[in-house]
Amino acid sequence: MSESIKRVVLAYSGGLDTSVILKWLQVTYGCEVVTFTADLGQGEELEPARAKAELMGIKPEHIYIDDVREEFVRDFVFPMMRANARYEGDYLLGTSIARPLISKRLVEIARETGADAVAHGATGKGNDQVRFELSCYALNPDIKVIAPWREWDLTSRTALIDFAEKNQIPVPKDKRGESPFSTDANLLHTSSEGKVLEDPWQETPDYVYSRTVNPEDAPDAPEYITIDFERGDGVALNGQAMSPATLLAALNDLGRKHGIGRLDLVENRFVGMKSRGMYETPGGEIYARAHRGIESITLDRGAAHLKDELMPKYAELIYNGFWFAPEREMLQAAIDHSQEKVSGTVRLKLYKGNASVVGRKSPNSLYSEAHVTFEDDAGAYDQKDAAGFIKLNALRLKLLAKRDR
Amino acid sequence: MSESIKRVVLAYSGGLDTSVILKWLQVTYGCEVVTFTADLGQGEELEPARAKAELMGIKPEHIYIDDVREEFVRDFVFPMMRANARYEGDYLLGTSIARPLISKRLVEIARETGADAVAHGATGKGNDQVRFELSCYALNPDIKVIAPWREWDLTSRTALIDFAEKNQIPVPKDKRGESPFSTDANLLHTSSEGKVLEDPWQETPDYVYSRTVNPEDAPDAPEYITIDFERGDGVALNGQAMSPATLLAALNDLGRKHGIGRLDLVENRFVGMKSRGMYETPGGEIYARAHRGIESITLDRGAAHLKDELMPKYAELIYNGFWFAPEREMLQAAIDHSQEKVSGTVRLKLYKGNASVVGRKSPNSLYSEAHVTFEDDAGAYDQKDAAGFIKLNALRLKLLAKRDR
Amino acid sequence: MSESIKRVVLAYSGGLDTSVILKWLQVTYGCEVVTFTADLGQGEELEPARAKAELMGIKPEHIYIDDVREEFVRDFVFPMMRANARYEGDYLLGTSIARPLISKRLVEIARETGADAVAHGATGKGNDQVRFELSCYALNPDIKVIAPWREWDLTSRTALIDFAEKNQIPVPKDKRGESPFSTDANLLHTSSEGKVLEDPWQETPDYVYSRTVNPEDAPDAPEYITIDFERGDGVALNGQAMSPATLLAALNDLGRKHGIGRLDLVENRFVGMKSRGMYETPGGEIYARAHRGIESITLDRGAAHLKDELMPKYAELIYNGFWFAPEREMLQAAIDHSQEKVSGTVRLKLYKGNASVVGRKSPNSLYSEAHVTFEDDAGAYDQKDAAGFIKLNALRLKLLAKRDR
Amino acid sequence: MSESIKRVVLAYSGGLDTSVILKWLQVTYGCEVVTFTADLGQGEELEPARAKAELMGIKPEHIYIDDVREEFVRDFVFPMMRANARYEGDYLLGTSIARPLISKRLVEIARETGADAVAHGATGKGNDQVRFELSCYALNPDIKVIAPWREWDLTSRTALIDFAEKNQIPVPKDKRGESPFSTDANLLHTSSEGKVLEDPWQETPDYVYSRTVNPEDAPDAPEYITIDFERGDGVALNGQAMSPATLLAALNDLGRKHGIGRLDLVENRFVGMKSRGMYETPGGEIYARAHRGIESITLDRGAAHLKDELMPKYAELIYNGFWFAPEREMLQAAIDHSQEKVSGTVRLKLYKGNASVVGRKSPNSLYSEAHVTFEDDAGAYDQKDAAGFIKLNALRLKLLAKRDR
Repeated sequence: MSESIKRVVLAYSGGLDTSVILKWLQVTYGCEVVTFTADLGQGEELEPARAKAELMGIKPEHIYIDDVREEFVRDFVFPMMRANARYEGDYLLGTSIARPLISKRLVEIARETGADAVAHGATGKGNDQVRFELSCYALNPDIKVIAPWREWDLTSRTALIDFAEKNQIPVPKDKRGESPFSTDANLLHTSSEGKVLEDPWQETPDYVYSRTVNPEDAPDAPEYITIDFERGDGVALNGQAMSPATLLAALNDLGRKHGIGRLDLVENRFVGMKSRGMYETPGGEIYARAHRGIESITLDRGAAHLKDELMPKYAELIYNGFWFAPEREMLQAAIDHSQEKVSGTVRLKLYKGNASVVGRKSPNSLYSEAHVTFEDDAGAYDQKDAAGFIKLNALRLKLLAKRDR
Repeated sequence: MSESIKRVVLAYSGGLDTSVILKWLQVTYGCEVVTFTADLGQGEELEPARAKAELMGIKPEHIYIDDVREEFVRDFVFPMMRANARYEGDYLLGTSIARPLISKRLVEIARETGADAVAHGATGKGNDQVRFELSCYALNPDIKVIAPWREWDLTSRTALIDFAEKNQIPVPKDKRGESPFSTDANLLHTSSEGKVLEDPWQETPDYVYSRTVNPEDAPDAPEYITIDFERGDGVALNGQAMSPATLLAALNDLGRKHGIGRLDLVENRFVGMKSRGMYETPGGEIYARAHRGIESITLDRGAAHLKDELMPKYAELIYNGFWFAPEREMLQAAIDHSQEKVSGTVRLKLYKGNASVVGRKSPNSLYSEAHVTFEDDAGAYDQKDAAGFIKLNALRLKLLAKRDR
Repeated sequence: MSESIKRVVLAYSGGLDTSVILKWLQVTYGCEVVTFTADLGQGEELEPARAKAELMGIKPEHIYIDDVREEFVRDFVFPMMRANARYEGDYLLGTSIARPLISKRLVEIARETGADAVAHGATGKGNDQVRFELSCYALNPDIKVIAPWREWDLTSRTALIDFAEKNQIPVPKDKRGESPFSTDANLLHTSSEGKVLEDPWQETPDYVYSRTVNPEDAPDAPEYITIDFERGDGVALNGQAMSPATLLAALNDLGRKHGIGRLDLVENRFVGMKSRGMYETPGGEIYARAHRGIESITLDRGAAHLKDELMPKYAELIYNGFWFAPEREMLQAAIDHSQEKVSGTVRLKLYKGNASVVGRKSPNSLYSEAHVTFEDDAGAYDQKDAAGFIKLNALRLKLLAKRDR
Repeated sequence: MSESIKRVVLAYSGGLDTSVILKWLQVTYGCEVVTFTADLGQGEELEPARAKAELMGIKPEHIYIDDVREEFVRDFVFPMMRANARYEGDYLLGTSIARPLISKRLVEIARETGADAVAHGATGKGNDQVRFELSCYALNPDIKVIAPWREWDLTSRTALIDFAEKNQIPVPKDKRGESPFSTDANLLHTSSEGKVLEDPWQETPDYVYSRTVNPEDAPDAPEYITIDFERGDGVALNGQAMSPATLLAALNDLGRKHGIGRLDLVENRFVGMKSRGMYETPGGEIYARAHRGIESITLDRGAAHLKDELMPKYAELIYNGFWFAPEREMLQAAIDHSQEKVSGTVRLKLYKGNASVVGRKSPNSLYSEAHVTFEDDAGAYDQKDAAGFIKLNALRLKLLAKRDR
């Protein structure tokens, strides 16, 4: 806190916590605050954030409210989906992938407004602080990053609310008590963690879910859809061309309706502890399965297996906050190179929590009915070749066996 | 065919195809045949195979009918499940993992009966020939392997049936026409491929499935179960201790009822072509999810991530037939080392195709509510440590950014 | 041999073996032969090959003699060196990397001359047959490949020489007996294997080496050189700009003089057996060390470690003949992405078999004396950050230790 | 410094720096100090450390001087060598591998003496602090670790010497000025860094080397040696059985004489910066090459390549201080599994900086002259098998080429 800060760009949601942070920055650092509120598709109105910021004395030209939904899906979600990234086997990285974009805008706005610092509302126990700060430092090594949760003494809910009231920050009634869990949302997912979710043996109460219906309440009839891909990215739903964000939003509607994409996970945080999270990624889950589906007929085995081997590291890098690190970019270069022919159409069946690929076709298909058929293949494949193939693959095993018997 | 064969052990199902092979071996090689029929839990009566073998002149002491279900699950399926192995992201390797066991018994029986060769009924286009033969050669480098499908000229269904009729092999009515698809079954799964499945754009007809009800026909109420694990292996269902094969069979019943474990996949065969397969792995799917669930609270992050990175290669080795190769054994040693503390209980919800982990607990849990809590953690974690952690993780990125701006 | 071949492009060295092949192709297939002789820097005159080809009736317009040295180094050797590729820890892949280029020209010349086949002189036991054929098939899936050594019955030296004499092919005196070993050479290396080298316990006789002096006979005084790199590729020696092939040739002269780059290796062939090879890669060894040297100050740790992890697979792909496979290209995309800033100068000391990096500098250096100094660093690095860094890295280990005590 | 410490075990060399630390601990924490001085083969007399400790008031029963050389080589160096570990392609990890052993003894002695803390003399910029502390925490999660260099204000050489003089700690004359570089030594290596080495463009002055003669001053005649291995570990030199530490010491003598094992490296520290180090690993370099040599004829390709793929991660773990982490142990389990048959004899030629494998033999050799020979192989290998092998390996590339033309 001893550093002198002139102007700071705050990732500002308009909610109680970041409003407290805003005020705390003004009070503690005596600095000017620039607010940045991003529309990432979290489904909240953003204009109230403007009013609140103005109330706290932020200059109108220092209030940034940006719709970054298309950029988010096009430049972050889709590239990640090309890799079939799932952290620890399951998690589609919905929170992790939003942080680099927010950081990028924070740093850009700092440059535009001549700010020397940025600030975020992530706590000192989580991954998000790491993701924000690694991204900011990678984009501007001289930027200062303020993480109030690691600095201040408002460590209890009561202290926070006291501070708010002393500083004329309105406290909504439902924020007075402890919230039963904390959430993060964007166009890709909603995550919930903490409080009622902290015992990993207890099933998540149904009221925690906000983005999907309970599969038990989903329609009794399945619904079939198609997704078209071009060069590894989704471009159309049921034959209708859509922009990245529009497509993901439409898949979210479908996923919500059919109860798709719920995930209850105990995961390993980068900071060294395990946490239990509840994720809802309705459209993302459908999209991820469809992407694997189109790859299954358009990617060569060598490319596909290499992608599978690289994926865990790639997902870990994003989870840990290394989106802007050279090794993530190297892996992306390899992955993107593989996607040139990943075009075609996938058909899926959506039904009560399931999103199942049931068909796939492509002008670039490598699937050869002529080769695989049980029927006469007209000479496409000579079964006798298999004998030599096996013999030479077996040679080293035979030599081993001869030695070791 | 020029080699002189004295006695051959045939992997014999008792069905039409392997009966034709039996006769063909007798006719072509003029050799004695020993039959081996394994009960892998495929759900067929095996005694008819004995009668058929006897009819074709096999000596009683040369007819082997073995129940290998416990060995199959204990020594093959469970070790593989410890690795969370899925080939190409999804396939639980139900066929692949049975082949090494059959091969092992073929080689053992050859030794017992003084046979100099083994024979199998796999075709020249598939993976199974490779799996059988690599395993046999690895276990006995001097064994001869006969693969009739690569040698004979019975390349059409008609030729095969002609041969059967000329040799007094009964041909069941439903085998006269082309079968609409071909299947393989054992306690872990049933696979179907070929014929009506050969167009990957066409949805699999419902009559292809034999091990699971259609999720749409599954019960409307979810069912909750628990699975207990000891050192990485399942030991009890709903608190009731069970042997490996018994546990998997009970999970199969549950999976069948709730329509769990169906998979429609276009996969890459080791022999270089793509094929479309339909898999049903009802109990295996439940078990695989449960295993990841118990690992999530008992495995350290370092171990868990290393396992995830090694998994694709491990799965590929099994798929390609390298179960008995040193590199598979090395990976198994690493994986098994990680499982010592993987004990505890997982609770799952089964519902219309979904098997979701909803709770997990363990005496060996590494999940620390004290650390992760949003509440006061009584000093378990000092949030200020995060600042240094981030700073040093960022250092190389800052140096990069300074250079590259 | 039953296939009808109209015209075949032969990789023709002009030596006895490929002359026999040329004639054998004419005799056996009754087809027209196109010869392709590549100057890869093997250090032999190529014009005699033209005369010999003409003598055997090849049309002048069907005799291709191409200098591909620059293409070889620029498009094959240097990209491979960017990866620091060494097969099985040591081998610089000098033979492996030449095969895709020869194959590429064979396929191009087949297209130009309307040939339907290509032929090579590699034996059925080695890796080269695989490398040639995989590359040819990848570049033209319809091409036929003839591998006479796998087809003909000239399986003894005597039979081969008889065939030559019956067909008026001149047999040099020194080829009458068994050659004591067989060699392959190009601008990157000379390899020797077989015969006197077949016992891996016996030291290689000195007469096997042809590209380097014995270190014991090398100059008693060390020589210092500098190599300049631009974006990962060498561009100058001792400050003098050079083309890729010129640079490698100059390094070869230096390496020869100082006895650098000898390697005696037992390696694992793709076809399943071990072989013992003797390699001389004088310039390549110097270059490889220099490349690592320039990377050491210009590559970020994340990029460097990812490269090291990917390298064994990359080297294996090249060794096994998969240069034109998508997974090699994906890895190349990742590697090339890392090289953008790999520019600067490396200083090496050459002395009796040693090529040691003794200095490196770069305008893109990431080495920060300000950070690393034992002296006062003026605040570049706060040592207290290390405490938090260690604490959070230790957290999971502490949780493990608490559980397991 | 606010924590109350009762008794602390200090890693004590007896030199000026750790003597200052000893006193500083007494003064600052008012606690009892236990000293631990390890004989790791660094080649210094240790008894003077006892006298100094006594002078500073350490109770005799609290002065530990242990010869851990055999444990060091047997349980740390040799297991690491089984993996062929080299960090960033070259560094044999001589410092890194000693830290876990020292940490283990610190924690053991703390338990024996009832100490609640340990202390080390590593600075806040290096890797050693991380290695010490991660190891200590992994072995005793409740131990406190004091790192004086991160805590105190003796940040200049002058301040340190002032403190020494004020506290009656003798300051040797040669320690008054700045040392031109700093070193670490043990039986495996000596490292030097800092000061005169800080400019990576400047060649290391010859006076920095202490463990090896300059290759230019090494004998003009090569020397041949043999090393015998049993199950992956060295057991004899020139046919004479030796304990691990004795063998390494004998190889050090040979390496010193022939100028072997010098390495000038710019490496990436775990704490995020690059540093330039000078390493001398005379015996280790010879041993490492010999180990690869014996593996080359006794390890199967699958095992060998898997080891090569795992090695960079394994080396990174040791470098970063994660010796006692589960993922290092998992990798060790895999590596050790591969070593069962790695027995036999390697012959090396030592000459002016070079340690070259020139012969290897083993009762477990997988090298088959019968297979590899250019001569008639009596049917060991059927060259025609190669055709099928290549055809099926090419199949996917052909399908790709057909699609993409």
